[in-house]
Amino acid sequence: MKARIHITLKSGVLDPQGRAIANALHALGFDSVDDVRQGKYIEVDLKESDKAKAKAAVDQMCGKLLANTVIENYTIDLVD
Amino acid sequence: MKARIHITLKSGVLDPQGRAIANALHALGFDSVDDVRQGKYIEVDLKESDKAKAKAAVDQMCGKLLANTVIENYTIDLVD
Repeated sequence: MKARIHITLKSGVLDPQGRAIANALHALGFDSVDDVRQGKYIEVDLKESDKAKAKAAVDQMCGKLLANTVIENYTIDLVD
Repeated sequence: MKARIHITLKSGVLDPQGRAIANALHALGFDSVDDVRQGKYIEVDLKESDKAKAKAAVDQMCGKLLANTVIENYTIDLVD
């Protein structure tokens, strides 16, 4: 089973990396760009085949290691 | 219109960051973890309302700035 994890900054949190990308895109002439937010995308391959157990394990991984829940949100999608 | 861009390393390319995450998860006792790959996730807000034009613009952004197409793949999802 594979877990697809998206980690994004919470909406109030300043995103300097996203700002830098937006500025670079404007400098390249992409004037239609309004705002850019950068996040992380992590794919985890799991031996676990039980969906509920896998979800619980990945949730723990995010809380303990992958995401900083003070400033970041995360979403988990499980695929077989 | 919003573009969701996933940038991932091509399958043959070594991913030391993903390896480090996998090792850290094993050290924390998550033994069900097989493999981890880390990628980037970028959300771009566009003023453009025409879907085809937006897709073409984001495709150009990825090729010129966001992704290194020698070692990375990217996928684009457009949402209204």
